[in-house]
Amino acid sequence: MAKNELGITVKKEEDIVSWYSQVVLKSELAEPSAVKGCAVIRPLGFSLWQGIQDYFNARLKKLKVKNAYFPLFIPESFFMREAEHVEGFAPEVAWIERKNDNEERLGIRPTSETIMYDSYARWIRSWRDLPLRINQWANIVRWEVSDVKLFLRSREFLWQEGHCVYATEEECDKETLMMLDEYVTMSKELLALPSIPGYKTEKEKFAGAKYTTTFEMFMPDGKALQSGTSHNLGQGFAKGFGISFKGTDGKDHTPWQSSWGVSTRLLGAVIMVHGDDKGLVLPPRLAETKLVIIPITIKKNPEASEQVLKKAKELEQELLNLGIDVELDDREEYSPGFKFSDWELKGVPLRLELGPRDVEAGNCIIAKRNTGEKRTIPFGDVAKNVPELLDEIHNEMYAKAEQFLKDHEVETNDFDELQKVISEGKYVLAPHCGSVDCEDEIKAETSGITTRCRPMGRDEISEGDVCIHCGKPAKYKVIFARNY
Amino acid sequence: MAKNELGITVKKEEDIVSWYSQVVLKSELAEPSAVKGCAVIRPLGFSLWQGIQDYFNARLKKLKVKNAYFPLFIPESFFMREAEHVEGFAPEVAWIERKNDNEERLGIRPTSETIMYDSYARWIRSWRDLPLRINQWANIVRWEVSDVKLFLRSREFLWQEGHCVYATEEECDKETLMMLDEYVTMSKELLALPSIPGYKTEKEKFAGAKYTTTFEMFMPDGKALQSGTSHNLGQGFAKGFGISFKGTDGKDHTPWQSSWGVSTRLLGAVIMVHGDDKGLVLPPRLAETKLVIIPITIKKNPEASEQVLKKAKELEQELLNLGIDVELDDREEYSPGFKFSDWELKGVPLRLELGPRDVEAGNCIIAKRNTGEKRTIPFGDVAKNVPELLDEIHNEMYAKAEQFLKDHEVETNDFDELQKVISEGKYVLAPHCGSVDCEDEIKAETSGITTRCRPMGRDEISEGDVCIHCGKPAKYKVIFARNY
Repeated sequence: MAKNELGITVKKEEDIVSWYSQVVLKSELAEPSAVKGCAVIRPLGFSLWQGIQDYFNARLKKLKVKNAYFPLFIPESFFMREAEHVEGFAPEVAWIERKNDNEERLGIRPTSETIMYDSYARWIRSWRDLPLRINQWANIVRWEVSDVKLFLRSREFLWQEGHCVYATEEECDKETLMMLDEYVTMSKELLALPSIPGYKTEKEKFAGAKYTTTFEMFMPDGKALQSGTSHNLGQGFAKGFGISFKGTDGKDHTPWQSSWGVSTRLLGAVIMVHGDDKGLVLPPRLAETKLVIIPITIKKNPEASEQVLKKAKELEQELLNLGIDVELDDREEYSPGFKFSDWELKGVPLRLELGPRDVEAGNCIIAKRNTGEKRTIPFGDVAKNVPELLDEIHNEMYAKAEQFLKDHEVETNDFDELQKVISEGKYVLAPHCGSVDCEDEIKAETSGITTRCRPMGRDEISEGDVCIHCGKPAKYKVIFARNY
Repeated sequence: MAKNELGITVKKEEDIVSWYSQVVLKSELAEPSAVKGCAVIRPLGFSLWQGIQDYFNARLKKLKVKNAYFPLFIPESFFMREAEHVEGFAPEVAWIERKNDNEERLGIRPTSETIMYDSYARWIRSWRDLPLRINQWANIVRWEVSDVKLFLRSREFLWQEGHCVYATEEECDKETLMMLDEYVTMSKELLALPSIPGYKTEKEKFAGAKYTTTFEMFMPDGKALQSGTSHNLGQGFAKGFGISFKGTDGKDHTPWQSSWGVSTRLLGAVIMVHGDDKGLVLPPRLAETKLVIIPITIKKNPEASEQVLKKAKELEQELLNLGIDVELDDREEYSPGFKFSDWELKGVPLRLELGPRDVEAGNCIIAKRNTGEKRTIPFGDVAKNVPELLDEIHNEMYAKAEQFLKDHEVETNDFDELQKVISEGKYVLAPHCGSVDCEDEIKAETSGITTRCRPMGRDEISEGDVCIHCGKPAKYKVIFARNY
């Protein structure tokens, strides 16, 4: 492959669709597979998902949520037990060929409410068994997706789904919001991604939920990304699956349920928001490799080269001892220039360069992937500086993404302006009447603009506000955007 | 539920089948699901699988094996590319209903060689790309299983599958054995389980492999358990999938491949080998909760009870600070006796008891789950003693299991004796001719006795040894047993 083909050949600003696809493929994050609609997550991509798993598992432990595993297959009759749920998911289910007609039809999970709650009905007997908090890391299949967009849309994807049961509505409300908050915090602290938490409208809520909360991100291609949801399921599933508990009063009660999930889609946001024309830019806390050491050796001077390699190994060991994952790229078959581009493409947060003159001077050069800024750092300061630099990069990346988010919000109550600014790649905060029909009309008229959420703390209307579309009295303010 | 129904109501020695089933269900490790042949892994069971994942992921990182994820679905044509492979797996595949006849039939992975090697053919270009070492944690479906035996046999199960590619046969041989050794070491160090590593015979090797190595365990019900395998796949798959690489000589070469895997079946061995009439006995390094603190409070004396709870919390914090996972069971609705039985059932390695008199005396009592032995330990020694006790338990559990393994091996070259000792619940080391037909005859004549492996370092025959069944010259010694 020619050198220029190795790097990204289009600019993010000019053609973000091709740019995204090139970044994912060339950095070796993922690739389409021979199976239509399904992707292969390559080692670099999977290391990021593992980063999310490790972070979130540690949180789950603190929150007393336990991991478990439920079957991939769901009997057809299970889908039927919650009316809205079956309607929402029926078109998406992949079914298994039956060997004979007496067998019940089995579908592959498009989500696991039904198969989990069948067990919950057996497990929950008394108030002593509540709250029950269970999470599952699993693969999910939604057949209707055929146009795979790596990490953002695919027939099969990886996710976590938490499913909790509570004695009271208050507890359920409280923890539904608590989990949303966990997601927003994880996005900020681990992924350096700002998001807009809010409530879904009636039209956009989860099939079978009392209400759905969401955190929405905004992508540089002008579309919103629903990044995860946390639902208060009310008592509908409990009734459908016969989950009840004996209270401290000795009587039978129907519990309240929540469910919440995020998926590999989060990685799509990481790539799209942070990446640049050179490739991936990984948030330092998510990146498995925090720093790459590139020794600059000179064939003509083997003695000096040996000194460089020796010092490089020392620095590698010093950072490894601090628990910082580093790579020493001592491949002899590639030039330093090639290596620089290669590791930039792969988004490693810091690059440490080291040549014979640096060794003599007792310094090395550290370059920041996000800004390209280079600093000369004495050997003795490397161990102290690297963790600081990683935090600095995290903060810079978050601040930049937050500024972008703020800069792309437009508040209006003019429907023409809404359409105009959205066509220019922004999103809109506007009053709405709350009617499902009105949302349907907006979506149809605009070929796809939808409400994303009532942003928390910012959805209150003023006296006299009317719906941006139908002109009837407004109920709340809502974010409008095109979306994935 | 009456108290005696909560505990195990049969003795392991008297009815191991019911005992196993009761232990798994009552300790809440797992349960059968509404989907025939599929199980639910409950939080306690899943914490053990996570223990295996954490241990093994740390090893994989050291061995430079990277995790990745490949599609659940495999096109029918892929199975066809390796002749022996398709024959071996065809009956086990679950197929997806097609929406129209033009689509290729898709199966759910019964193992991932084919879908992974399709990608490998694209990824591998030159010697620089080798060795390629990739692992996947995934759910696997083998439809023919319908009689679910929790953790040991089910239609869907969880496993890891490593798939590596090497430039030379030598490397491939070396790492095939290295991974088997990793499994044997993990079984010993994490699960406190001894095993017999060896080579599978031609008849028992993996469909498509050049040769298969295995580590076999021996269960107290008299059956061998194939606990995991590591295959040298030779070059068959590489040829079938068109994987080749340009060597340092500039020419095209066909690489060598290995694959290796262990599954949730390992947990079946943990339960069956270590458990006793009171329930689970968890190996300390695998148990998530290492110690449970049970405060013995007295309703009539609230002041003393408060002192007990205060000290219990201090000890809890002290152990948590050491990174030792402990539970303080301060549930007021249950008696200490109930709690003792409950935690014994769940297999927690250590129980710390603490009553008003203990607080006065400055001591507590620590009981070992594996032996029931109790020790009085001064408060000041708890932090030092607990890690030592956990190691002591691990070593005792391993030594006991190893003794059991040794005690149940019989070496003979008399076929009647082979049948007799196996019917008494032992296994046999005996000379065999190596013929597949002879193995088929043995299996048919004995309704199920099979060769398990040629045990490494112990398979050599003496001059003049003849096959224990057909009387022809023997090729090697092999382990015979009934198996799962």
